[in-house]
This record gives sequence, C-alpha cells and structure tokens, in this order.
Amino acid sequence: MPTKGEIEAFLATAFTRFDSTIVAVGNRGATVRREIGEAELRPGGTVSGPTLMAMADLALYVAIFGEIGIVPMAVTTNLNINFLRKPVANAAIVAVCKLMKVGKSLAIGEVSLYSEGDDDPVAHVVGTYSIPRNHQEKIKE
Amino acid sequence: MPTKGEIEAFLATAFTRFDSTIVAVGNRGATVRREIGEAELRPGGTVSGPTLMAMADLALYVAIFGEIGIVPMAVTTNLNINFLRKPVANAAIVAVCKLMKVGKSLAIGEVSLYSEGDDDPVAHVVGTYSIPRNHQEKIKE
Amino acid sequence: MPTKGEIEAFLATAFTRFDSTIVAVGNRGATVRREIGEAELRPGGTVSGPTLMAMADLALYVAIFGEIGIVPMAVTTNLNINFLRKPVANAAIVAVCKLMKVGKSLAIGEVSLYSEGDDDPVAHVVGTYSIPRNHQEKIKE
Amino acid sequence: MPTKGEIEAFLATAFTRFDSTIVAVGNRGATVRREIGEAELRPGGTVSGPTLMAMADLALYVAIFGEIGIVPMAVTTNLNINFLRKPVANAAIVAVCKLMKVGKSLAIGEVSLYSEGDDDPVAHVVGTYSIPRNHQEKIKE
Repeated sequence: MPTKGEIEAFLATAFTRFDSTIVAVGNRGATVRREIGEAELRPGGTVSGPTLMAMADLALYVAIFGEIGIVPMAVTTNLNINFLRKPVANAAIVAVCKLMKVGKSLAIGEVSLYSEGDDDPVAHVVGTYSIPRNHQEKIKE
Repeated sequence: MPTKGEIEAFLATAFTRFDSTIVAVGNRGATVRREIGEAELRPGGTVSGPTLMAMADLALYVAIFGEIGIVPMAVTTNLNINFLRKPVANAAIVAVCKLMKVGKSLAIGEVSLYSEGDDDPVAHVVGTYSIPRNHQEKIKE
Repeated sequence: MPTKGEIEAFLATAFTRFDSTIVAVGNRGATVRREIGEAELRPGGTVSGPTLMAMADLALYVAIFGEIGIVPMAVTTNLNINFLRKPVANAAIVAVCKLMKVGKSLAIGEVSLYSEGDDDPVAHVVGTYSIPRNHQEKIKE
Repeated sequence: MPTKGEIEAFLATAFTRFDSTIVAVGNRGATVRREIGEAELRPGGTVSGPTLMAMADLALYVAIFGEIGIVPMAVTTNLNINFLRKPVANAAIVAVCKLMKVGKSLAIGEVSLYSEGDDDPVAHVVGTYSIPRNHQEKIKE
C-alpha cells in the first residue's frame, strides 16, 4: 500500500490548491491537518463550513487510498455533515477518518473534525465513496 | 429585504475568497453561479466535490438572507449531498436553492446543482441553517 | 413495466405488515398513502418519525419498480430525513417520490411527505437504493 | 436521572407497539435490543430498513432521556442512515447510541446497529433531536 509521502505527492499534483498535510494513514483510517488562515474563516471569526467539508472529503479519500492503493477515480457519492461546536480561528483543523466498510464498489467512513488541541469535535461527517470496478486507472506502486 | 447587490457586497467583504455571483434571490429561493477553472477541478477532469458543497452552502445562505435579511451569524448545522452525475470541466456551475421551511430558529432548503446549459442536475443537497434567536448582529438595511 | 396492482400484490406477499396503498406509479415517481391509527402515533399526538421513514423508503422502492420492474433485492443504502412540521394525528400520510437518477447500480430519489389535505410537507427524504447488477431475481411480467 | 425501568415504563405507555428492551442507558449513551420475527423481515430474508431506522431513532430518544430526564416532546429533526451489511434473519438487532452533543436546544448522536453476536455493524445512523426549550412537559422523577 502507498506511503503517506506517496499519497501527498499524488494529491499535490492532482489538485491546484492542496493546503493539507497527511498526519497518518493506514489501519482503515487517516488523519489530515490544515492550517487555518484568513481564507478559511467566515463571519463570527470561525472556520467556514466548506473548509470542514473539504477536509472530511479529503480524509476519506486518503483513508481509502491506504486500503486499496491510490485510485484517483474514487469519487464521493454521498456526504453528510453535522456541525457540533464553533471551531476557534487560531488553531489548525484536524480530521480523523475511520472507515466502516470497504467493499468492492463502495467505501463508507466517518470523520471527526477537531480544532487542534481540543478533544471535543467541531463537526462529524459520514461519507460514501464509489470505487471504480476496474482499478486500471490506479497508479502503480 | 436586501437586494442581490447588497448581499453580494456583504459576501465580498465577509469572505476572502468569494468567487460566485448571485443570479437571483427571493421567493424563498436563490440561484448562485460560479465559473470553473483549474482550482475547482479534481482527477477525471471534473468539478471537485468540495466546490459543489461550498456552492450549495452559499445558495442556502443567500436564500435565507432573502427571507430574513442579512444575518451573518446564520450557520449551517447539517448538510447532506448526493452526487448524481459527473459535471463537465468547461461549464460554470449553477446552484438553485429552494427553501422548504423558514422557522424561528431553523431554516431548511434543498439545492440542485447543474453544469450550466444542462438540465440534469450533477448533485443535490439538503441543508439546515440555525438562525440566531436575536438578530442583533443583523446588518440594518 | 408492472402495474400498480402488480406491485401492491408483490408487496402484500413480501411484507407481513403492509399497511399502505399505492396511489400512483410511473414517470420516474410514485405516490403511496397510509391511514394513521393509534399504532402510528407518538407523544404529542403526532405521527411517529419511523412511520414517515418507512413510508418514504416504500415510496422509493415502488418508484424504482416503476422504472426497472419488480426487483425485490433492490436495497436501501442511504436515507436522509428532515422533519419539517408536525403531522396531524387524524389525517392519512401521503408520500410523493420523484427519482433524480436511475443508474445501472444506484437509484436516487427524493420524497416529500404530507398530512393529506395540507400542501406544506411534514418531512422530506433523500434516499439511495442499490440495484443488483443482475436482475435474475426480477419477477417476470 | 431516570432509571432504565422508568424509561421502559414510559415507552410502553407512550407507544402502542413497543417491541424493544433497554439494555443500558447513561454516560451519554444507550443500548436497545429488539427480537426479530417475521414482521421485521424483508425480501432476501433480512431485517427491513425501517426496523433499523426505528431502533436507531429509539436509541437516540433513550440516550437523551438518560441525560436530561424523560422529555416526551423531544423530537427528531434529522436522521441519516447508511446500510453497511446484510443483517441475519435469526438474530436480535442491538443498537448502540453515543451522544456527540447535548446542547440546550439540540442533541446529536450516532448509533451503530448490530446483528447480535456479530462485531461488524449492519448499519450506522447519525441523528439530531430538538429539545423543547421549556421542559414543563417533562415527567417529574
């Protein structure tokens, strides 16, 4: 399976704006982290919802790569987010994904998002990815 | 109630990266539009999921402003997105929101997202915003 | 494609407790109706949430049958419900499903639920069904 | 806070069909269990989706009672379920709820559902309840 570095290298190439780092990947999970600056804030001096959604979506993508290899064409089919608490403006966001199922065609996981240094999650996500039947587009490792 | 221009002026001030335009607002709904460039794409030459989520979240925010005025502290509490079809890379995305309920403390709406010029939606969202009890933070018009 | 009566006959056989009737099916949609009695109520003199969830799930199942035939092994993979207003205790519930996508392996639709005679929906559902690749178990018409 | 027996007594009175037992309640969580018979099955010899939805909704209701007392008018506002594996027909279903947030007006929790005796969940739910501002309708303990 791909290393953290290999997945980061793929993501940096695949996305024009890739602002996160992978803290950990493997064991049916992944943790990603993103510094928060002005561009990620919204009224109220808090992190914007779309920033949290994007991080959760990324954490799922990385966790799936950790299980089946780098499959760029894995795509989100459903994502459900609940916002629980107001994130602080001056801490990074950490997204911790645990996969609940990795099937042949679908993978489902949950993601808890935190303001770094705080144990109470700011948001919770459940998301489903569709895995292409044929991993021919898979980057060989 | 605020005009399209007043809401756009607020959004341009409130967000560092505000890349959308408001096509219409009012009658318990809103339509927003965003040009798609390299920064919004993902592997497969299609629009990234987080771009669609961000636009749906924005369409809900704008539609609510059209009903209760510009209330910056309205915040998303839940958002559920289903991806239906692959958006094309070379068309703008248009998000059409219809509110289903505007209560005292919660507003709920659905958003259909389209590749401009195509009648079949690429994604569908249902989202809930929490409206602060006290609109003191409301910008006066 | 199967008629309303054929689908009702299948459902009455397949489920021990089948308490609904099919009002309409076809054109990528379905409408189902259920009388409300003591067994469907919850504290507050209103229809219980699970009653509404079950009806939405059924409306999706019937709508899919209307498109691809009676495929008993079509199964729900995701269902998201938002409760909008309190249903009245003394009216039937009517669930109106519109399919948004009927693909080879997934079908996605939305369902609006009403207290019969009232135009404002009491709940809104988006649900996804997985369609078995091979409709061998499909009942021939 | 109410005991398991007090909550069961309330539920048996409040619902005509109350087919579950409370295994545990407290510590921001609850576990409920239901025997599976013919009435809970669907085509394929598996437990019906609405049975799982109803149990998840109940587990949330009970878990909230364990935190704030028996508040009958707590009502679901959103529920999202993902089906992960096919439940077996001949085992009870066990639903384990953990609350993620218990605020003044909203409580949010997740529920993992199992075929009794199997460690892999058959379904996963995230749900939100609205808590009435004024617990006057709360049953005194």
